[in-house]
Amino acid sequence: GHLHNSEAFNYGVETWKAYKRGGLSKDLVEEQKKVQEADLLIFQFPLFWFNMPAILKGWMDRVLVQGFAYDLSKAYDGGLLQGKLSLFSFTTGGSQEKYAIRGGIRPFLWPMQHGIMHFCGVKVLEPHICYAPERVSEEKRKEMLTAWTQRLKTLWKEEPIDCSPEWYFK
Amino acid sequence: GHLHNSEAFNYGVETWKAYKRGGLSKDLVEEQKKVQEADLLIFQFPLFWFNMPAILKGWMDRVLVQGFAYDLSKAYDGGLLQGKLSLFSFTTGGSQEKYAIRGGIRPFLWPMQHGIMHFCGVKVLEPHICYAPERVSEEKRKEMLTAWTQRLKTLWKEEPIDCSPEWYFK
Repeated sequence: GHLHNSEAFNYGVETWKAYKRGGLSKDLVEEQKKVQEADLLIFQFPLFWFNMPAILKGWMDRVLVQGFAYDLSKAYDGGLLQGKLSLFSFTTGGSQEKYAIRGGIRPFLWPMQHGIMHFCGVKVLEPHICYAPERVSEEKRKEMLTAWTQRLKTLWKEEPIDCSPEWYFK
Repeated sequence: GHLHNSEAFNYGVETWKAYKRGGLSKDLVEEQKKVQEADLLIFQFPLFWFNMPAILKGWMDRVLVQGFAYDLSKAYDGGLLQGKLSLFSFTTGGSQEKYAIRGGIRPFLWPMQHGIMHFCGVKVLEPHICYAPERVSEEKRKEMLTAWTQRLKTLWKEEPIDCSPEWYFK
């Protein structure tokens, strides 16, 4: 659609205004509808560079626009997606031991869990991490799948993590 | 080109093997050449969700392949891009005061500076942060540009930061 301010393009402002007037592209509207209807958002991905792969980061950048996910002074506990839960479930290349040497994996989760989900008012369940599935035995891989199946069965009884700096950097 | 293992596709392995046999796509080879020739890598971007925008994360995901940027047991101080410097220069939406309330901006830099650059053996200069340029006066914005110009003049005399957990999470 048309630009709100064609003199000085500002991506954040344009998506905010487009959201307000129902002018976002169809794929974004569909993704937002899924988010709106969900009680729990599970993000499943391979960890690339201690972070989400770019394509998933692009989903966050495009879908979680101002007005929909947060707004002026509506962030963190006041975020617009309050009442929802999220869970980051991912596989790594390196082993748990390798991560442990340098302070563990939790500090890397601060931007995604706190910076994105918590910012939008979404509470966060304990992440589900499968360390180095490509380097372990077939049997170990099956155990990983079984553990995930088991966890899903009682996921609704879990309490969110305490999304504080202590959890991440203790 | 052809796949190294067409039975079980593994992105990391395929790009590693493609790099080894000179089979990466032309745009990646060109980007890697730029990195190879550079003494200093400056990444300039607007902070999106306390992180790089997806398109820049995609650059990291695609360009910094195994064999080129790191290798088995060649990471961190042994990373393959040793001898280079990097600098993350970015603008934010929120003010410095807003960041200060929740532990500041440094913890968000751990994945990019430590997890990517330091992992590849690249040392990191103090980040250059322009807080909320869209919310300050024209005069303030000009001061920001002047400060950046000034900094660039003596950048070569700067020492890298101590890339330790203390710098990020103190």
